Amino acid sequence: MERYEIAIVGTGPAGLEAAITAKIRNKKIILIGSKDSSVKVEKAHEIQNYLGLPKISGENLKKAYLDHLASMDIEITEDRVVSIYSYGDYFALQTKEGMVEADAVILATGVMAGKMYPGEEALLGRGVSYCATCDAPLYKGKVTAVIASSPKEEDEANFLAEYADKVIYFPLYEGDVHTNEAVEVIHEKPTEILGEMKATTLKTNANEYAIDGVFILREAVSPGQLVPGLETEGPHVKVNLDMSTNIKGCFACGDIAGTPYQYIKSAGQGNVAALSAVNYLAEKQRNQTK
Amino acid sequence: MERYEIAIVGTGPAGLEAAITAKIRNKKIILIGSKDSSVKVEKAHEIQNYLGLPKISGENLKKAYLDHLASMDIEITEDRVVSIYSYGDYFALQTKEGMVEADAVILATGVMAGKMYPGEEALLGRGVSYCATCDAPLYKGKVTAVIASSPKEEDEANFLAEYADKVIYFPLYEGDVHTNEAVEVIHEKPTEILGEMKATTLKTNANEYAIDGVFILREAVSPGQLVPGLETEGPHVKVNLDMSTNIKGCFACGDIAGTPYQYIKSAGQGNVAALSAVNYLAEKQRNQTK
Repeated sequence: MERYEIAIVGTGPAGLEAAITAKIRNKKIILIGSKDSSVKVEKAHEIQNYLGLPKISGENLKKAYLDHLASMDIEITEDRVVSIYSYGDYFALQTKEGMVEADAVILATGVMAGKMYPGEEALLGRGVSYCATCDAPLYKGKVTAVIASSPKEEDEANFLAEYADKVIYFPLYEGDVHTNEAVEVIHEKPTEILGEMKATTLKTNANEYAIDGVFILREAVSPGQLVPGLETEGPHVKVNLDMSTNIKGCFACGDIAGTPYQYIKSAGQGNVAALSAVNYLAEKQRNQTK
Repeated sequence: MERYEIAIVGTGPAGLEAAITAKIRNKKIILIGSKDSSVKVEKAHEIQNYLGLPKISGENLKKAYLDHLASMDIEITEDRVVSIYSYGDYFALQTKEGMVEADAVILATGVMAGKMYPGEEALLGRGVSYCATCDAPLYKGKVTAVIASSPKEEDEANFLAEYADKVIYFPLYEGDVHTNEAVEVIHEKPTEILGEMKATTLKTNANEYAIDGVFILREAVSPGQLVPGLETEGPHVKVNLDMSTNIKGCFACGDIAGTPYQYIKSAGQGNVAALSAVNYLAEKQRNQTK
């Protein structure tokens, strides 16, 4: 398996800035996320306070970001990180597409919109999953629900339908849904996941559905779910001024590291996180050669 | 005296970003520093990691900053803040040109290059001064030295010469010196200030000069000298993640708040400092109307 020096998770301003800063410092990096950068940036009408780029539209800011990346030959690995395990002196990142190893990790996944569903945390791994690609084979012949925060999840639902007997799809986004015929689309609002040992029922604002499993597919998962053992404060990772976390070698920046949710603040923290990761690697190397 | 809601001290990326963010939030601000932004930015050959502005020269980045300010009708008050006193619920800022009051203060003065001279701290206010404009009248008929970090200080020396019997000028910068005839220019490196109750002698790498006073004129003074009572760590202000300091209503950002010294980090922190100041003002108002 290829081992990177720094794995950067997330492609909003924090992740992109971390990537360019780490690249300038000649680190072997992998930048994982959406090739399209951040939906949140793109949809912004006008940004007034990104110093140096007055009154820029979200679309143009996103373009400026991706042009900057291209000018430095930095590629985005289009993938989603499902969980990250610390093994003391390196990290294993489980992604939808496989596994990645890295000496240091920078979390820049943004903040989860909204709250977790009642029952979600308690039943995670017991019928609640965040990754259809990973867990679909477990639901062969079963009834599953998919709660999807963006049209990107339609492929996930289609893939799940190749295994599951039934897939009920709850789009949380506006606009048309383009899933395969095997997927049943229901426009209701999920409110709660019920079950004792395992998830058994998905409640919505209008009905209850008997299910064997429910896939909750969001742009960002809560940081404590993503990295077991990570110290959090509500939806945020607890960070120090140098963007370090309670886990050695794991740094966080941008919205995931707390308010305010501002592009220039995220970029600034991405820069700090990358330089702190560079320092961490240098210190690690000094200790190994002692 | 005019009272501002937020006084922002310093016009590098941290101060400018703080100003535009506070202006967007409709705060009554004063932005004090050099109209020319930061010498450090301007002299940078090429900046590679300011996300969104790839491979930009320092000169062009400075221009982008000042254009951004102009587009929002934010003016820089060309002045230098000499000291800042907290009076519990407001601040008084002594500047070269006069006095300013503000409900909150954002320090973005950059970091002092180099160390203090031996004797400097002990003799401050007792023959050591940071402001010729403020203290010149005290040296009528006396012998004074000026240690100047940039050509901007030549005017200060000329002004001092109108009062003092003798002004010895030590330029720490390269290039020609254009002071009045009354100012004696000496190209030696000051190393120490001597004196018991008062400064009496300035030592250089080559000589010793008997003096009544010495003016040390730097781009930035040490934060503890600028704001009495401010908690510092070496040359930096101790800040929390929201850029607050140990003094209520006083925030710091950019190089003065610690390493790394990076433009995008400074801008990001300026944004956070401004929003924290806005929150502070809102909370103060809530408490007053209770």
